[in-house]
Amino acid sequence: MTSLNDLETPALVLDRGVLARNCDRMAARMNEAGVKLRPHLKTAKSAKVAETATHGHFGGVTVSTLAEARYFHERGISDLTYAVGLAAGKLDAVATLQAGGAQVTLLTDSPETLKAAGQKAAALQTDFRFLIEVDTGGLRGGVLPDSEVLIELGKYLHDTPGLSLAGVLTHAGHSYHCRGQAEIEQVAEAERAGVVLAAQRLRAAGLPCDTVSAGSTPTAICARSFEGVTEMRPGVYTFFDLDQMALGVCALEDIALSVVATVIGHNHAAQRILIDAGGLALSKDLSASEFLEHAGYGLICPLESTQPLAGLYVESVHQEHGLIAVAKGEPPYDTLPVGSRVRILPNHACMTAAAYNSYHVVDGGQDVVDAWDRINGWY
Amino acid sequence: MTSLNDLETPALVLDRGVLARNCDRMAARMNEAGVKLRPHLKTAKSAKVAETATHGHFGGVTVSTLAEARYFHERGISDLTYAVGLAAGKLDAVATLQAGGAQVTLLTDSPETLKAAGQKAAALQTDFRFLIEVDTGGLRGGVLPDSEVLIELGKYLHDTPGLSLAGVLTHAGHSYHCRGQAEIEQVAEAERAGVVLAAQRLRAAGLPCDTVSAGSTPTAICARSFEGVTEMRPGVYTFFDLDQMALGVCALEDIALSVVATVIGHNHAAQRILIDAGGLALSKDLSASEFLEHAGYGLICPLESTQPLAGLYVESVHQEHGLIAVAKGEPPYDTLPVGSRVRILPNHACMTAAAYNSYHVVDGGQDVVDAWDRINGWY
Repeated sequence: MTSLNDLETPALVLDRGVLARNCDRMAARMNEAGVKLRPHLKTAKSAKVAETATHGHFGGVTVSTLAEARYFHERGISDLTYAVGLAAGKLDAVATLQAGGAQVTLLTDSPETLKAAGQKAAALQTDFRFLIEVDTGGLRGGVLPDSEVLIELGKYLHDTPGLSLAGVLTHAGHSYHCRGQAEIEQVAEAERAGVVLAAQRLRAAGLPCDTVSAGSTPTAICARSFEGVTEMRPGVYTFFDLDQMALGVCALEDIALSVVATVIGHNHAAQRILIDAGGLALSKDLSASEFLEHAGYGLICPLESTQPLAGLYVESVHQEHGLIAVAKGEPPYDTLPVGSRVRILPNHACMTAAAYNSYHVVDGGQDVVDAWDRINGWY
Repeated sequence: MTSLNDLETPALVLDRGVLARNCDRMAARMNEAGVKLRPHLKTAKSAKVAETATHGHFGGVTVSTLAEARYFHERGISDLTYAVGLAAGKLDAVATLQAGGAQVTLLTDSPETLKAAGQKAAALQTDFRFLIEVDTGGLRGGVLPDSEVLIELGKYLHDTPGLSLAGVLTHAGHSYHCRGQAEIEQVAEAERAGVVLAAQRLRAAGLPCDTVSAGSTPTAICARSFEGVTEMRPGVYTFFDLDQMALGVCALEDIALSVVATVIGHNHAAQRILIDAGGLALSKDLSASEFLEHAGYGLICPLESTQPLAGLYVESVHQEHGLIAVAKGEPPYDTLPVGSRVRILPNHACMTAAAYNSYHVVDGGQDVVDAWDRINGWY
């Protein structure tokens, strides 16, 4: 059987046991809360992960690209929320997907997009179903929950032939920058209260609002109440990463994703150990550094575990080089001879995984037990 | 004919006229200096770019992965330097390439790697040709030019059946962090002097040293002398980017690469214009920010040119969202209505291009005149 030692490096490794535990825990939490889990598959982009992540729930998923929508639909998932503000130029592709049997729920906060969608629906003799994006503090997409434009968008969707109002959606992405559980709880409550307020206002205006969708991994894990919310859309909890660990929403042993690299040199003058995984293999995301000193571009583990070697991290990257340093003093050249291999825990699983077309799947050990594909790109 | 307005977004765009001008200028400079140009194709990863970049020179190229080596060899380029310190586990793949007619020159600074390579050469009954990596201040890979280990590596290569010593190689990557032309000139001279010293010491020890290879784009452009250097390996000069512009080694109009995105929302509360190009479409590289205020993740141009709109930049990114801000005040919502398109000049061309499988090629205008492929991944 192939082992981590036989892989060509850099290689992306996913532990399916850890994945399953992460998914089970989130599914149970959402079931206890009486909330549907619509996992965001932008992290994994993989049908095999979708299978695990939808287990015990209704089967709907969230995607971040139409390429994901097409890929998952071809693999049997028909209830898809495309949770990025729609560019109307993508409506032909959406219509094609729907003609094939997919139900793609779209997102916008823009009257211009809805006008274009209404015209496109008429031209193609099809229907487009939208969620209105609500900004509950993330300062990304969305109208404010108490704004007039929310009601205007709702009315336009309800009144325009070919368009329909599915509900409201928000994403408290700023939960990634909270310091401590109490602060995440506050953001989670603001996310819940904001999106529920938006739903109540639409309903008070005589408009339908079946779906009240919220969620990021930190808020799904830390929220004290989901009252009024119908579904949550966490994503990175499937794999977790150093950023989530630094935030305090997972433990080190919950991180399911790692990159295997080979030591290619020792630079004694620079006090660095060089590996063949750099900015492309790890991404240039530095998110964990907001909370964690000496996290750099990832923490270094031996090949046989995902327990970091004390103080060792990827201090800098070039396109194909990673430079390992130790927090204090000389790196342990003897522990990591040239030709040996390391496993790197990534800062941000979504960004790191995106450089690879597939996962080498392990189950707690070093044996590679399966290969799972991924769908990258946009169209 | 397809225009930039018809493309699915985000889309990677390459201007072949600007590319040709950049390549011609570098080729002429290297010819004047009497130095061979071995363009580093890690930026472009494209056979059509290789054709332009090798024009007027001997046809050898530099690559950063074995996937690139295989791809370029299949497209008629046989003289390939794989300029990343070798992991001995990759030697089987190198041998396969060589059996097919490629001449792959390898790089190392490690006795352990050479020992493994000697054993592998004997086992496979083949030959491996190496450059010794020299550190001339980059503090990445390489032995010091005046070190004893340089001579030991040279002797081992010369004396071991199946191995041969091709010469020395250095890369002054720290030239990317210089402030001003004078500082780049100093780094270039240290790069030249260091690698030439290493070559002289090998020759004085009775060892061959045909190739004396140096170069980064900044040092290739700014060096005052190439005495003793036989080849230069710049790469990003083919496309240039905001980082190189900020460094002062190119002008804005020399940037050949851009990303087309669609405006998907206006967040008036946050004072941001949202586009469908985020951390994956642009990369999370922030290199230009070292020298350029308000560069963020890229500068915003109208679709019809690559002249930035005053003060507009991608202030932050999420996986599939980019948030445009203006240096001062409110963004110009009327100039960039929802559904309109922008062109983004990237921070670091090598990182941005890596998210795409192909280039939409233009020639000064908005018409897409060709599609050129790229080879991503590692193996």
